[in-house]
Amino acid sequence: MKKIGVALLGLGVVGGGTYEILTTKRDYIRANDGIDVEVKSVLERNEARIKELGIDPAIVAKDIDEIVSNPDIHVVAEFFGGVEPARTFLLKALENGKSIVTANKEMFSKSWSDLEKAAKKGGAGLYFEASCVGGVPIIRTLTDAMQGNHITSLKGIVNGTTNYILSRMSDEGVDYDTCLKSAQALGYAEANPTADVDGFDAMYKNSILSSLAYKKRVPIDKIYREGISSVDVKDLKIGRELGYTMKLLAISKHDGKMTEARVHPAFLPTEHPLSGVKGSFNAVFVHGDNVDDIMLYGRGAGSLPTGSAIVSDIIFAGKTETVRRFSFEEEDVKDDTFATDFSTEYYIRVEASLVQDASVKVVSALTKVGVEVVKVLTKDNDLVLLTGTTNESTMQSALDTVRALDCVNKIGALVRVER
Amino acid sequence: MKKIGVALLGLGVVGGGTYEILTTKRDYIRANDGIDVEVKSVLERNEARIKELGIDPAIVAKDIDEIVSNPDIHVVAEFFGGVEPARTFLLKALENGKSIVTANKEMFSKSWSDLEKAAKKGGAGLYFEASCVGGVPIIRTLTDAMQGNHITSLKGIVNGTTNYILSRMSDEGVDYDTCLKSAQALGYAEANPTADVDGFDAMYKNSILSSLAYKKRVPIDKIYREGISSVDVKDLKIGRELGYTMKLLAISKHDGKMTEARVHPAFLPTEHPLSGVKGSFNAVFVHGDNVDDIMLYGRGAGSLPTGSAIVSDIIFAGKTETVRRFSFEEEDVKDDTFATDFSTEYYIRVEASLVQDASVKVVSALTKVGVEVVKVLTKDNDLVLLTGTTNESTMQSALDTVRALDCVNKIGALVRVER
Repeated sequence: MKKIGVALLGLGVVGGGTYEILTTKRDYIRANDGIDVEVKSVLERNEARIKELGIDPAIVAKDIDEIVSNPDIHVVAEFFGGVEPARTFLLKALENGKSIVTANKEMFSKSWSDLEKAAKKGGAGLYFEASCVGGVPIIRTLTDAMQGNHITSLKGIVNGTTNYILSRMSDEGVDYDTCLKSAQALGYAEANPTADVDGFDAMYKNSILSSLAYKKRVPIDKIYREGISSVDVKDLKIGRELGYTMKLLAISKHDGKMTEARVHPAFLPTEHPLSGVKGSFNAVFVHGDNVDDIMLYGRGAGSLPTGSAIVSDIIFAGKTETVRRFSFEEEDVKDDTFATDFSTEYYIRVEASLVQDASVKVVSALTKVGVEVVKVLTKDNDLVLLTGTTNESTMQSALDTVRALDCVNKIGALVRVER
Repeated sequence: MKKIGVALLGLGVVGGGTYEILTTKRDYIRANDGIDVEVKSVLERNEARIKELGIDPAIVAKDIDEIVSNPDIHVVAEFFGGVEPARTFLLKALENGKSIVTANKEMFSKSWSDLEKAAKKGGAGLYFEASCVGGVPIIRTLTDAMQGNHITSLKGIVNGTTNYILSRMSDEGVDYDTCLKSAQALGYAEANPTADVDGFDAMYKNSILSSLAYKKRVPIDKIYREGISSVDVKDLKIGRELGYTMKLLAISKHDGKMTEARVHPAFLPTEHPLSGVKGSFNAVFVHGDNVDDIMLYGRGAGSLPTGSAIVSDIIFAGKTETVRRFSFEEEDVKDDTFATDFSTEYYIRVEASLVQDASVKVVSALTKVGVEVVKVLTKDNDLVLLTGTTNESTMQSALDTVRALDCVNKIGALVRVER
């Protein structure tokens, strides 16, 4: 039986979950997959954690060099998070012919090209299923199940923290700050929640998924990003009445040449399959020209769900005869194949002094610049408008005009509406 | 570049869709997957169809022997449907070292062990992603994405015809016969709809999916089966009021040793992710001990969605170094590892003459044999009861008692409630 030696870098939540799965399922994997996966080395300074997991101190490495020079190690799985030292350690591993497995979306989306080059040099492979949507095989689906499709769009709820917050705000009518605090108390949000609530995490994942979907590198600086921290619970309520559910979406579209990618809160029709994805669950909705719509749903985080994807990748890396690589090089990024504008429908809430008066003036200001207004309603002193499909740039300049109207106090909300 | 020669057996809906994808995406697949897939031979007697698809008459084979003896053909994809001649032809192909790709759930679920043996003999592989849920990679997920999980349950909407009928009955309050006729008119149901509406198609798919999930052969004769033809639109309406949506479900459960598998209409709580799967869409919900819940959603049928899965399998078969087989032999089926009874909650509708009178008597009859009644309501002359978890055998004998009561005209409906 083929033996696969694994090194685990870091034994935090997911590293520990992975160790647990590899240990408890070793015989099961031998029986079903015909390979023997063994943890041969760990890199972890926390001795209490080593003890807690019941790891033999003899396999604790003193540094990364001990691991990359060990011929019994075939796969290096990384759990540090953040760019460094993960990046440096994984480049070393690849250059030394060890395939890498990682859940680290930030490091991966920022370093993909360099990892590619190191992998090529060392004859090793890149496995990162766990970087997007935890245990859900969305990457395997994009790379190995849709080969006969040009993928034209992708919409995902890829961040559990923001989905938990928005779901609670929507279901219970509680404001953003309260929901964030309870997410922090439950461990769904970090003490510093920026990476999640400001959409960075979703942006990293959008970069990875869109690159695979469109077979072209979609770097993070080509992705429009907006978080949920200024979402007003009032708009979730009005949205529901109008038949919409708000989600933080990672969106991208590709027409064969031009690509657009963005992360922002958006309204979806309540009957859209993504609208039912609640709490800390994640889902990705993909459209291929032959397969039509596909959606994958599951837990986007957690030690065992993410560990499950890591273990699957270790087995994939261990069993394959041809190492897995992608031909993305940073220099392939052609600026003129990325859209600088995008178009969508809009929900606008305007806070006005004389709402009836304002209604006529706001609609007129929007219509004058070509924005089609399909619905107008008043909510207390607020004016709510739904528009037809409009360019973002047109909308932003239209809003400047609206903001300048005497009867308008401020733009209370601008939410993009996706279908 | 590696060249893969393919033979297509039958050029009906899915065969034609597959030919179209392989032709239009040939360069795309060469560029992305690094293999050149070419249709080298087709087996199809309908000359008009050959012409319609623009196929060179020179590659039309006169019989299966011409195909299995052609050294340029590596993969044989079958689209006949039904057991024969598909089975005989595919056994020949396997014995001659050609890997097979099929969407034929009936033939596959009935002949798996024999196909295994032939594959082993010929050194070829078995690929059948398209047999379950069209273009959705549920088989790849069970085999190649959940290796670190003991799968404990599976629930699927795996038949588009019945889901279309039940969705329309539920949304529009139209009766079964009317919905069936419109499904036939739209081409969603066959002139003879038995395979779909009586649950045979879902049973074949349940057999395939459950076998892969639990790493044990789950033959069709171990699967309880009940169709939708006696579903009364009245119960969908009452169910909705109680917060339930009716679906024809393929269900299976496995506790490490014992397996139960069944196909029947069931109520799901409306907030369950499967409840939102409407019309001809399909979805499968799987629970793994580490990954927790996963759901895959998409089109379960159609020429291009199913063709997409066929093409993915052809590429998988063409690229892999190790042929894909499963170690199922018919003689492995151990009767004492299959449950003969199952337990679930129930919705019962009793048609009674004096409904208030009947209420007391029916509840008493049920309670006496240990069935917990958690809700009782009356609807016109009908009595509706919801029970706690009960064994099917207990329920059936309890219903015999209820049926014998003077005040009871008949059991209007018995619907199992899943969560």
